[in-house]
Amino acid sequence: MRIVDIIERKRAGEELSREEIEAVVMGFVRGEVPDYQVSAWLMAVCWRGMSERELFDLTGIMLGSGATLDLSGVPWFVVDKHSSGGVGDKTTLVVAPLVRACGVAVGKMSGRGLGFTGGTLDKLESIPGYRVDLSAAEFVRQLEREGIVLSGQTPELAPADGKLYALRDVTATVASLPLIASSIMSKKLAVGAHGLVLDVKVGSGAFMSRIEDAQELARLMVEIGSSAGRRVSALLTPMDQPLGRAVGNALEVAEAIETLKGNGPDDLMELSTMLAGEMLALAGRAESPEVGRDRATEALHSGEGLDWLRRLITAQGGDPKAVDDPGLMGTAPLVERVEAPRSGVVCRVDALGIARAALTLGAGRETKAGTIDPRVGVMLHAKVGTRVSKGDLLAEVHAHDAATERQAVAQVLRAYAIEDECAGRQGFTIERYATPQDS
Amino acid sequence: MRIVDIIERKRAGEELSREEIEAVVMGFVRGEVPDYQVSAWLMAVCWRGMSERELFDLTGIMLGSGATLDLSGVPWFVVDKHSSGGVGDKTTLVVAPLVRACGVAVGKMSGRGLGFTGGTLDKLESIPGYRVDLSAAEFVRQLEREGIVLSGQTPELAPADGKLYALRDVTATVASLPLIASSIMSKKLAVGAHGLVLDVKVGSGAFMSRIEDAQELARLMVEIGSSAGRRVSALLTPMDQPLGRAVGNALEVAEAIETLKGNGPDDLMELSTMLAGEMLALAGRAESPEVGRDRATEALHSGEGLDWLRRLITAQGGDPKAVDDPGLMGTAPLVERVEAPRSGVVCRVDALGIARAALTLGAGRETKAGTIDPRVGVMLHAKVGTRVSKGDLLAEVHAHDAATERQAVAQVLRAYAIEDECAGRQGFTIERYATPQDS
Repeated sequence: MRIVDIIERKRAGEELSREEIEAVVMGFVRGEVPDYQVSAWLMAVCWRGMSERELFDLTGIMLGSGATLDLSGVPWFVVDKHSSGGVGDKTTLVVAPLVRACGVAVGKMSGRGLGFTGGTLDKLESIPGYRVDLSAAEFVRQLEREGIVLSGQTPELAPADGKLYALRDVTATVASLPLIASSIMSKKLAVGAHGLVLDVKVGSGAFMSRIEDAQELARLMVEIGSSAGRRVSALLTPMDQPLGRAVGNALEVAEAIETLKGNGPDDLMELSTMLAGEMLALAGRAESPEVGRDRATEALHSGEGLDWLRRLITAQGGDPKAVDDPGLMGTAPLVERVEAPRSGVVCRVDALGIARAALTLGAGRETKAGTIDPRVGVMLHAKVGTRVSKGDLLAEVHAHDAATERQAVAQVLRAYAIEDECAGRQGFTIERYATPQDS
Repeated sequence: MRIVDIIERKRAGEELSREEIEAVVMGFVRGEVPDYQVSAWLMAVCWRGMSERELFDLTGIMLGSGATLDLSGVPWFVVDKHSSGGVGDKTTLVVAPLVRACGVAVGKMSGRGLGFTGGTLDKLESIPGYRVDLSAAEFVRQLEREGIVLSGQTPELAPADGKLYALRDVTATVASLPLIASSIMSKKLAVGAHGLVLDVKVGSGAFMSRIEDAQELARLMVEIGSSAGRRVSALLTPMDQPLGRAVGNALEVAEAIETLKGNGPDDLMELSTMLAGEMLALAGRAESPEVGRDRATEALHSGEGLDWLRRLITAQGGDPKAVDDPGLMGTAPLVERVEAPRSGVVCRVDALGIARAALTLGAGRETKAGTIDPRVGVMLHAKVGTRVSKGDLLAEVHAHDAATERQAVAQVLRAYAIEDECAGRQGFTIERYATPQDS
């Protein structure tokens, strides 16, 4: 089996056998197949796609390239959550404590944020002392004891994915639905949660800007999970404007805390309880996602969710006082107002534009080696549909120096569109994909 | 300009600027761009193709990556010839002396044969002493003195092409029309002949099996040449059955010699004089290709062509006595008859099948490191249209051992189809593409 023949077959649009995919992927992991052959193969996959059988095989091969966690000692049903990433998405920090408060365990490994704004790990690191580098054994132990753990991806799980991803990142072969789906699912299957809820974002601030791509990605991931015997459901949710008001790491943690206190922005409250309800239904703790959502809302208003956030922070070495005094996470030295340049209705708050401003301020990293300032970011005071007068506060920019502040203010202004009236927004209904046993 | 962004743009089907193509290709040549990025880019080019502007730029960049020959001291019009390769194609050995005999210089660098049968260099090396490793300076000097030179590609010309080709070869990115056209033309432009005749083969034994691909390749190469100010014409010629009777290195040289003596097979005589006529017309030594063909035919029957083959061999250190005694090139120890298994008409002699038999016998190399036995090969005694009786001689296999002989006999038999009557062959007219000034 010559690798060049396998590349040739994929290039010609033929279906590869499991053995052929394994020869490429595991040969690469073992250092026997050179990266230049693998990158040509990856581009051919971007071109020709993969059949479902190939997709299941690729996922299984990456899963099998490393360890899988043994969660048999966890006395609860364990659910995991994945978001395809969006601007201002801090739902995990709200959802995980709510679900745990309802008697279902949550075990989740997150990646670093790459692109514009920080990932969940970066947000958690705003909390003084919080450890995101748990070993696989520590991850399992905390899940067994506490029933809640949010930590970083450990290198023992699906190492083939990590190696392939690093190559995809530098060869423009990231954006392929089968490669994305198998990458996410191989890691999720390796963690081994019993159920998984996927939040697939669509819109200008999401990795998927076309709804057809998001639908296909959701469908593929649900099918991979189902074929591996897991309960999986996926929600397609909009990401045209940022979620909530805060974009920036400590600012987002503070907003998640406020949400668990019942004072969060409507969209964040709604999405968080909806995802939590989905997870509870998947775990069999609610007859339906709607009932689950009601339970999660109760846990929010009763303060039980906030208690579980404190317990999570404590269990992972963080200072739980941050929950009552978010100022412990630090505050940016400069805060500048962004004012409405005219009167009218806010018709657009471009998520990508706000993300760019956050990146300018230092809330995200452009390269893997980049460092993040947890204190900086953007607070949105007017979102789509708000009527404003000239001079009203649109947003605040939290900066560490005047130069980035000035640049970010201009970027935030460009992200806003204020009109006399808004043309009808294209309707976007939340769509749901689920494994057969749960639909 | 990040390389990953350039790959991304090509992947998305966008047109790249000259600077972007240069960044990839020259960055690779200088060792600054890693091969895994280049191979992903190459696969994206296979996928998305190239605009004519991109194609001209890529060719120009590869041409500019190395030296170009200075032919200003050559007192004749210089023509070059390229064949896209076919089974039994020894036309260069016939055409070059004929054209020289008519007062036009021929300077050609050839590659090694890769694939099934030997290339022109391998055939020339059958002649005792013949040097195919002339330096660029020796190539020019011989062209200035003799007006005829057939040697190997020198590494100083278009080195970017050599480096890219080596990567394409192991990443299944060879079969892309723009990559093929720019690869061939960058080397041809670097040699610097004033005119170029391209023989693009189509059929089962050719690199291009689909006529549409061959047409497009011919068109692209003619346009590249024209845009660089050269006179170029291309002929599409059939390659369903081998050309002539001999397939194998010394056997083919012997057949070329016989052809220059006026005793060659009809198809080889016809194609050789047609190509020579095309070259003479391009050089302005004949008013039309047809007149040129008549001149070449005269040079063949007068023996002047054969004289020039002797002069060529002598000039390049070979033993001209091989012309009169082809046995000096060695003969295979075993010669086995392949007989007709039934009576009827030969309806097919599959070129690829005969090539496989030749490879089995050792006439070609499977890898760059493979060695060739110049003596072995296949002699076809019955070609398409011949009526045979059971037991008649179809072909002879020239082998160096009994095992390869047995296998090759079976392969030759499989390549033959003998029927009661042949269904009408699909018509194939020779097509001609030329630069505007010559059409």
